Amino acid sequence: MPRITFLPSDISVEFTDQENILKAAMKAGVHINASCGGAGVCNKCRIFIESGQVEGDQLSDGAWRACTTRPVTDITVRVPAESEMDKKALVRPLAKKAASWIQAFGEKIEVPLQPAVRKEALDIPEPTVTDSLSDLGRIRREIGTEVHLDVDSQVLYQLPYAMRDGGWKVTASFLETAKPGFKRLIRVEPGTSSQANLAIAVDIGTTTISAQLLDLATKKVLAEASDYNPQVSYGEDVISRMEFARKADGLKVLQEKLVECLNGIVSELCTKAGTGLDSISLVTIGANTVMTHFLLGLETKFLRSQPYTPVANQFPPVRAAEIGMELPEHVRIFLAPCVASYVGGDIVAGVVGVNMNHHPELTLFIDIGTNGEIVLGNQDWMACAACSAGPAFEGGGIKFGMRATTGAVEVVHIHPESFEPMALTIGGRKAKGICGSGIISLLAGLFMTGALDRQGKFRRDLDTPRIRKGEDGWEYVVVEAEATSIGQDIVFTEADVENLIRAKGAMFAGYLTLLESVGMTLEDVERVILAGNFGSYLDLDQAIIIGLLPDIPRERFFFAGNTSLQGAHMAALSWPKYQEMITVAQMMTHFDLSDNPRFMDHYVSCLFLPHTDLSLFPTVQEALG
Amino acid sequence: MPRITFLPSDISVEFTDQENILKAAMKAGVHINASCGGAGVCNKCRIFIESGQVEGDQLSDGAWRACTTRPVTDITVRVPAESEMDKKALVRPLAKKAASWIQAFGEKIEVPLQPAVRKEALDIPEPTVTDSLSDLGRIRREIGTEVHLDVDSQVLYQLPYAMRDGGWKVTASFLETAKPGFKRLIRVEPGTSSQANLAIAVDIGTTTISAQLLDLATKKVLAEASDYNPQVSYGEDVISRMEFARKADGLKVLQEKLVECLNGIVSELCTKAGTGLDSISLVTIGANTVMTHFLLGLETKFLRSQPYTPVANQFPPVRAAEIGMELPEHVRIFLAPCVASYVGGDIVAGVVGVNMNHHPELTLFIDIGTNGEIVLGNQDWMACAACSAGPAFEGGGIKFGMRATTGAVEVVHIHPESFEPMALTIGGRKAKGICGSGIISLLAGLFMTGALDRQGKFRRDLDTPRIRKGEDGWEYVVVEAEATSIGQDIVFTEADVENLIRAKGAMFAGYLTLLESVGMTLEDVERVILAGNFGSYLDLDQAIIIGLLPDIPRERFFFAGNTSLQGAHMAALSWPKYQEMITVAQMMTHFDLSDNPRFMDHYVSCLFLPHTDLSLFPTVQEALG
Repeated sequence: MPRITFLPSDISVEFTDQENILKAAMKAGVHINASCGGAGVCNKCRIFIESGQVEGDQLSDGAWRACTTRPVTDITVRVPAESEMDKKALVRPLAKKAASWIQAFGEKIEVPLQPAVRKEALDIPEPTVTDSLSDLGRIRREIGTEVHLDVDSQVLYQLPYAMRDGGWKVTASFLETAKPGFKRLIRVEPGTSSQANLAIAVDIGTTTISAQLLDLATKKVLAEASDYNPQVSYGEDVISRMEFARKADGLKVLQEKLVECLNGIVSELCTKAGTGLDSISLVTIGANTVMTHFLLGLETKFLRSQPYTPVANQFPPVRAAEIGMELPEHVRIFLAPCVASYVGGDIVAGVVGVNMNHHPELTLFIDIGTNGEIVLGNQDWMACAACSAGPAFEGGGIKFGMRATTGAVEVVHIHPESFEPMALTIGGRKAKGICGSGIISLLAGLFMTGALDRQGKFRRDLDTPRIRKGEDGWEYVVVEAEATSIGQDIVFTEADVENLIRAKGAMFAGYLTLLESVGMTLEDVERVILAGNFGSYLDLDQAIIIGLLPDIPRERFFFAGNTSLQGAHMAALSWPKYQEMITVAQMMTHFDLSDNPRFMDHYVSCLFLPHTDLSLFPTVQEALG
Repeated sequence: MPRITFLPSDISVEFTDQENILKAAMKAGVHINASCGGAGVCNKCRIFIESGQVEGDQLSDGAWRACTTRPVTDITVRVPAESEMDKKALVRPLAKKAASWIQAFGEKIEVPLQPAVRKEALDIPEPTVTDSLSDLGRIRREIGTEVHLDVDSQVLYQLPYAMRDGGWKVTASFLETAKPGFKRLIRVEPGTSSQANLAIAVDIGTTTISAQLLDLATKKVLAEASDYNPQVSYGEDVISRMEFARKADGLKVLQEKLVECLNGIVSELCTKAGTGLDSISLVTIGANTVMTHFLLGLETKFLRSQPYTPVANQFPPVRAAEIGMELPEHVRIFLAPCVASYVGGDIVAGVVGVNMNHHPELTLFIDIGTNGEIVLGNQDWMACAACSAGPAFEGGGIKFGMRATTGAVEVVHIHPESFEPMALTIGGRKAKGICGSGIISLLAGLFMTGALDRQGKFRRDLDTPRIRKGEDGWEYVVVEAEATSIGQDIVFTEADVENLIRAKGAMFAGYLTLLESVGMTLEDVERVILAGNFGSYLDLDQAIIIGLLPDIPRERFFFAGNTSLQGAHMAALSWPKYQEMITVAQMMTHFDLSDNPRFMDHYVSCLFLPHTDLSLFPTVQEALG
């Protein structure tokens, strides 16, 4: 790989494929002005090649366009600087990422292979005149009378054929029950070889559904698939979907759309793995309380309004076919138990998925999504809360906010002198909007350069055309119209900032309220686990600067990805893990923050950047001087 | 009531309504020749009124026709007699009926009211902001955490409405499970008053289906209903129906017809009791193994041929709706467990229904129906067998055999000198055929008058036109053509006798085989319980004379009626009684007589009237002189 050395900062970095010099600069912590996101449009990312060979676009004055130029050999690049001050400003701090939880802890979790459905090969004596015990009786005799056997009625229809077709060798599927000494016979297949035992683990998110096909004999993930939750057409968030559910047939439509999507995913998984639906024995699902209700078609009317009562938090195993899933009759769905209307099975699955219930360290588990849920605790106790943070960090309620797809500004660095941005888009395409990570880096950058004050207001006196009064009040121009794919300036407004401050304030007030309720402080937190995809892109320093995450040593942070899917995965492999979920849901003390005066106090204090009390953010305080 | 005195025997009897003088004579043990069954056709039942007033038909010579004449006052009747011998012959022995088991024991059985489905009124605290536990969680809290609660998924759909519609008062239905400390919530209704808890107990016989609607709060029978088993159109007996089941859709048709009939019966029960299907919580069923398979739509192919293997003998509770019954989703069917292919749940229900499993006395339980099943034992052990007796005692395989309906000859007395019959039909209508009790009295009468020898052959040398050689060999003319409704002589043939001897021989050989297998003899039998309607009409002496029942003191016999229904009834009221059935089915040692050499030996010895070894029948031996 060629090496790039940037001047005047004299920072060098290895160039990797799929990059250009602009992206390499961002990775190296070098600022280069860039408005169009890397689409080769704005011509602002001018650089000079001092040594080495490149290929790409050279401009008339001999400069090259960083975003469309790649090194062929090791190169030295000079970024134009107008002053000594400027030279310093060209160096931006490197992004500090949270460590991967999977690498740190995940691979060490022992998940005993003990699935809820076990297949057992039985070699049954053929009946004779002197031993004409019934077909079912022969199975009972084979497994021993000390086991009390419940039997699914469909088994009675399979039995006589399976036994005779299999030459008195059958494979029996037994479902674990919560009762010691009790088993449930749910299926009998002819023969004792090549009966695969597969499971599907699913995370049903409000926006995205992700699933894995697992082999219950080898623990292997045979295939993965995901799709957008099709309910999005009926409402972006759970509240609007619950409103839709109140219409005639609304609930039915939402249920059917969801199941249809799951059927598609299951089919895709089977195609990818080259297996049939028939080998699937069980489904485990992590989903929030509202999604769980929708999946089963349960009434959400009473979940929607105070006192926000779910129909149930802990669900019996449900037959997949009963809710319309195209799976064999014996397949049961195990739903991760919920804790309350806004702390759902996805969180419980997540907590088990990261083994928090087996760790002595005080852990803060944070899932920043549409809502924002937090769990504080360790193996001995847990407190949880939903923070009603809203979807601001997913781009919701932000003027040019968008999902993290092609054309989204995903990272921005602000030049501390000129306030010129260095903006990169996903896919290097012309900008369409700003996604979550872009929003955080914008907010952090504008605050740290002093363009925004602690109240989240733009300084009106700065000599830059980027900060101006627009139709929606004061704003920062991230990308000029001509460099976008939407033909208008992409701006970041004071109203956006206000929304973000409220969102991060709700999260942070949540941490403080839970900590306070157990007589602890942020300093006591030994681990912060960031759930969801969010965490993996997050620049920790920036998230701390804006007051979204606590200012504690960075090595205590771990991003854990889709913990809900991870929990569902474990529960599929291991029935005891599903039972752990039930235990965890029961041990969690839920705090309803919507009605909590201490939360309101904290929330008000959090409506500053990063917080009213700067002593809570020592590294930010230091950086601000 | 007027009194009738019959001369010359000087026997008097009280006349009851719905009778005529012929019927009164039969009851009194007085023989009057009568061929037409009491239809006023044959004019053989001539009598003279010596005192008192009558109304009816007087014949030209001053005699009256006994079958169409009724007393108005006390009367004295002279039956014409031609000799002193004749005078004696006119007195026939009184029928000895078995005592009613219900009166002797049935009313003393304590059936604790503890149905498998219990309704519990719950008064649930309304949710508040500080107590927003889920709807299901509130139920769990109310019943206490020491109970592990399983939940039917349909409950989740009822819960939110039931709780709110009922103003937080609900009636919860809990299903007992075999697991101590475990309950299953199967239904939640709004409100806590007027929720009836009803059950249906059913006996599904091969020919007839009988059912009761029970109130599980008061133990009361609210209504009764019965119907013919509609499967009769597809075969009279289980064998021919299993043959039909092998045709395409045959099993489906049999299942659907049966369920359709059950739905009709359930509907009739509800109409009679003025209640709705909605109050029904459970169904208990006693049925033989084949009917149980048909009800569930289970394969009977392997039950049909050696080694006669049922799919199952013990069945899980089945949802009524699942097999097509028009009952609410929560209703479960509890099927009495079977023992083997031809000793079914009807027998097990019957044994529990007569409390045989709680009596120390050695009891012989006999169910003479299409097949003939016997159970020998007491509270400590039980042996059982099916005797393949065939349906001869129900009229099957008998030339003029018919069911016990209007026009069936139900009782016959043979004049020991003239061999003239005194035949009565059901309903006093012209004879159409001969039913079971008529067949037994014919066989016993013909044997005791010497018209039949011990091999079952008619004496060829008797001077009576009643015994003749017909187209099917030797026969006895019971009713002449002109006195029938079918326009031909109703006869009783030697082939009929042979069939009956084989049938009774199979039963008796069954008793002896079971007794022998436990080292006991007929004398050890302390009680004989006759199950089925059969027993209530049976003349014990006659049944013993032909060798169908053992010759032991008559007070040891009890007729118990529909014991299968009685067992289902008990199991409906009391879940422990259902569990007793499972225990009873497990404790029964089944003897497969079809393959038993000792049975074959006994059977051959039984092919005489009453038996090769007359010492087994001391009272018959004495009567024969």
